[in-house]
Amino acid sequence: MVSVRIREAKEGDCGNILRLIRELAEYEKLSDQVKISEEALRADGFGENPFYHCLVAEILPVPGEPQGPCVVGYGLYYFIYSTWTGRNIYLEDIYVKPEYRGQGIGSKIIKKVAEVALDKGCSQFRLAVLDWNKRAMNLYKALGAQDLTEAEGWHSFRFEGEAMRELAGK
Amino acid sequence: MVSVRIREAKEGDCGNILRLIRELAEYEKLSDQVKISEEALRADGFGENPFYHCLVAEILPVPGEPQGPCVVGYGLYYFIYSTWTGRNIYLEDIYVKPEYRGQGIGSKIIKKVAEVALDKGCSQFRLAVLDWNKRAMNLYKALGAQDLTEAEGWHSFRFEGEAMRELAGK
Repeated sequence: MVSVRIREAKEGDCGNILRLIRELAEYEKLSDQVKISEEALRADGFGENPFYHCLVAEILPVPGEPQGPCVVGYGLYYFIYSTWTGRNIYLEDIYVKPEYRGQGIGSKIIKKVAEVALDKGCSQFRLAVLDWNKRAMNLYKALGAQDLTEAEGWHSFRFEGEAMRELAGK
Repeated sequence: MVSVRIREAKEGDCGNILRLIRELAEYEKLSDQVKISEEALRADGFGENPFYHCLVAEILPVPGEPQGPCVVGYGLYYFIYSTWTGRNIYLEDIYVKPEYRGQGIGSKIIKKVAEVALDKGCSQFRLAVLDWNKRAMNLYKALGAQDLTEAEGWHSFRFEGEAMRELAGK
């Protein structure tokens, strides 16, 4: 079993994070939607008022091994606001490289997000998952999450592109 | 046809906004979930780094009428972060009092959100709707939104309460 550490991302992790963002989008079969750059990730996450926060999972090297720790997963989150319960966390992305799955790394990231949420006075955190991704759905359910789309019928809607410009009259 | 204005909420609107938040939760048959107070809304939305922003829809008085403008709807939003497209907007709540529906007030709020999104360099805004709320779903679709749950299979998950504390080991 490899030794894993979950830690807060630093600006220097953005290259690795972007590679993992692209891998996740490929896994979700939606990779054409990734428009973000490493520069944007650096500016948006590590300025004075960061737009997001990120955890990385890294494999620690075996003592005596020449190479350093290796980032194999990430969890990217930000603060949202519920008019029912106030400030909460949204876990936008969670991803572990395929060859490192089945070792509890995803659960470790989720647990760290729960810790951060409680530390920050949040009563909940949310995330979204694709319905064919049964492995992820089962993990979240096993960890105690509720599927709000199934339980209450919530559907996610998005306005973008031409439709948004037309609405704005621009 | 009444005369309607959509404007940014002020701190003094929080009492009205809380009444409308409660009405919306009743309409969604989830009113037991509202734990927020007027004080929290004031502190969270009108400090130095506000956790949310809010638009209100108000009916303007007919000239000569003694009473002032009357708030009949709201749209509460905040900034989120997509690892595909960067900074975006999430419209957490949108509500118009039943007796003022069918006059385009909801569309006016949506249009204003689209304007804000474009002004802030966002390429999209998202929202969630309950599947039995066909009226709202049809409105959003008519205005150009895509149902991501239907189109791509996104499900919304939530961790909270005991499950979250257990995850955090607290």
